[in-house]
Amino acid sequence: MRVFILGIDGYLGWSLAQYLGARGMDVGGCDALLRRGWVAEVGSTSATPILPMSERSVAYEETFGKPLAYSEGDLCDYAFVASCLESFKPDAIVHLGEMPSAPYSMIDVEHCTFTHTNNLIGTINTLFAMRDICPDAHLVKLGTMGEYGTPNVDIPEGFFEIEFRGRKDRLPFPRQAGSWYHQTKVHDTNNVTFACKIWGLRSTDIMQGVVFGTRIDEMGDDPRLCTRFDFDQAFGTAINRYCAQSVAGHPLTVFGAGNQKRGFLPLRDSMQCLHLAITKPPESGEYRVFNQFEEVYDVTGLARKVKGVAEGLGLDVEIANIENPRKEAETHYYNPDRQHLIDLGYEPSRDMETEITVTLTDLIANRDRIEAHREALLPDIRWDGTRRKSAYLSKGA
Amino acid sequence: MRVFILGIDGYLGWSLAQYLGARGMDVGGCDALLRRGWVAEVGSTSATPILPMSERSVAYEETFGKPLAYSEGDLCDYAFVASCLESFKPDAIVHLGEMPSAPYSMIDVEHCTFTHTNNLIGTINTLFAMRDICPDAHLVKLGTMGEYGTPNVDIPEGFFEIEFRGRKDRLPFPRQAGSWYHQTKVHDTNNVTFACKIWGLRSTDIMQGVVFGTRIDEMGDDPRLCTRFDFDQAFGTAINRYCAQSVAGHPLTVFGAGNQKRGFLPLRDSMQCLHLAITKPPESGEYRVFNQFEEVYDVTGLARKVKGVAEGLGLDVEIANIENPRKEAETHYYNPDRQHLIDLGYEPSRDMETEITVTLTDLIANRDRIEAHREALLPDIRWDGTRRKSAYLSKGA
Repeated sequence: MRVFILGIDGYLGWSLAQYLGARGMDVGGCDALLRRGWVAEVGSTSATPILPMSERSVAYEETFGKPLAYSEGDLCDYAFVASCLESFKPDAIVHLGEMPSAPYSMIDVEHCTFTHTNNLIGTINTLFAMRDICPDAHLVKLGTMGEYGTPNVDIPEGFFEIEFRGRKDRLPFPRQAGSWYHQTKVHDTNNVTFACKIWGLRSTDIMQGVVFGTRIDEMGDDPRLCTRFDFDQAFGTAINRYCAQSVAGHPLTVFGAGNQKRGFLPLRDSMQCLHLAITKPPESGEYRVFNQFEEVYDVTGLARKVKGVAEGLGLDVEIANIENPRKEAETHYYNPDRQHLIDLGYEPSRDMETEITVTLTDLIANRDRIEAHREALLPDIRWDGTRRKSAYLSKGA
Repeated sequence: MRVFILGIDGYLGWSLAQYLGARGMDVGGCDALLRRGWVAEVGSTSATPILPMSERSVAYEETFGKPLAYSEGDLCDYAFVASCLESFKPDAIVHLGEMPSAPYSMIDVEHCTFTHTNNLIGTINTLFAMRDICPDAHLVKLGTMGEYGTPNVDIPEGFFEIEFRGRKDRLPFPRQAGSWYHQTKVHDTNNVTFACKIWGLRSTDIMQGVVFGTRIDEMGDDPRLCTRFDFDQAFGTAINRYCAQSVAGHPLTVFGAGNQKRGFLPLRDSMQCLHLAITKPPESGEYRVFNQFEEVYDVTGLARKVKGVAEGLGLDVEIANIENPRKEAETHYYNPDRQHLIDLGYEPSRDMETEITVTLTDLIANRDRIEAHREALLPDIRWDGTRRKSAYLSKGA
């Protein structure tokens, strides 16, 4: 099976290339290498040292016994996207090539418009190139659980059957995203749905929870295969940031009341799910949605979990509530479905504590890199458009 | 009251300037004049001769006794948008400044990406400029009934109360748009909703039905005040195109089975509704949706209505079904609400037949201009991405 990964230099992309390569697939991919610049722009870097794609490709071929078909270029350039698909002839395209940070998209009008252009145009170019070059290929598109927001009802997987004024229909579940970035994912969802409908493309749209962890088994002990790990306010997500804070002796920063619930899953399970989606494609013309997460936690419970594991490793950790830089519901109902992947055979590979232990151990080895970017751990990008470090509301716990 | 119109050179924009000017409002506006080029690109022109904005502005001031604050520029340029709002200081901003054609957006990848960039970035720039310059102003944003698609349930005005698995919530009604253009309007809807929520902006989002007609009373007999009238396959909407076809002795081209239902309203009622929205603004932070149309017809019934009126004026008219260039449901349930505007005092000004009579009379005076662009009347832009004139499926009726 031939799989082409858009955004192969990223946290998920580089991991997925290896997960698929280890399973005998022919893997190609492209990247514009923008992520490295975005993280530098917000004053941070990957906690794990990562190599340029030229060296990663060499390591990949040595390890997995096949070349990695890598091209550097921008998804916003249609000719580039078309040339990638024409030369690689993929059975599946995994689209991880977007700007993935809510805070980054909220910085100012330039970052908001950039996020829209980058994410939407890249996806549109991919859809048109698929239509004209490989209409039978399967688009596995990364969305986010954040598209749904926090409605006061259960969250189905993409669609729901409703009765309204005595009539019934199956409709897309309403999306209520909480940042410009999340909005671009909703826009993508609508555009991909439409392309499947009018052109008969097939797509799996993955509403992914928050992924955490430093590694998958396929990376072994080769540092060249290591994937990036972001911990800054913009590109570091909750558990990863808590882990980095634990290692750097920084309070674990819980936003506001800390009752915000989210779905989480370890990096290795994210890979398992993407692999399942790839190997079990939908029918031509079918657009299907998978909610992808392992467990739901509120961000306080999560901080306590990280603190517990970290203390077991001899780290001294405190949890602090800080002003919430976001505008979001801090206390809400949250009960999303996640049956579709289980139906395909998804089995969680291990428990969260074990995964956090591995992550903390990897980060302790890179403590200096985190401490050198300590300023990036406390947020100052606010949803109201101002830029100000969140004040501490409480300490201890 | 100070009202700034984005897209003031357009069909609705130029009409609205006069409708508001006649009611004593201070009117300003901007335009990038792109519409004139788009229509030329698809091989057509306005059936009514229209003047450049420099001459329109002179006529405006002579007629309504106040200068028109006009600026030429692109909404995709944030600095331009900000300078407009800073200098005009509007109480309301009416956003009619988007690329409004479904077929134009479906031509190819360049037209799809252009439509996305033009429409989304223009709206985002407007939202950020409002936040930073005039956060109390009211954004009256033009959406379209086409955002909803054709669900098998009633279409509420933007939001609906649902019960799902025993729990209740008020949620955005799911959108299922049928073209890239319509998708951009859905994306805008999501973005405007979000801006109101996080920044406390106020907005009325108008899901407008298909507008038709050549004039409003305020234009009088001054040809300089005449608004544009498009009849080509891309920018001419159903009734307007039928009227132009009647005048040019071209069959009225009904797409496919012709049972597609849509909401329609005359230009003068569109103006009345926009005026009502402007004069009765929502609260700060409120995002409200108006479904705006007067009557629902299927496109065959509409063709028969135009034919009937045209024959009364001595025109010889036939109706023909042609291959549907679009991918859409041709037979479907359709029952949208439209109570919000009625609650504010909306009263339809006259019946459809009268309006069609006026339109046909105006078009007969410009028959040469339509006949010179006769090729533009029959569609060749197809939803499957090919370009081929629709074949006739039937003649007569």
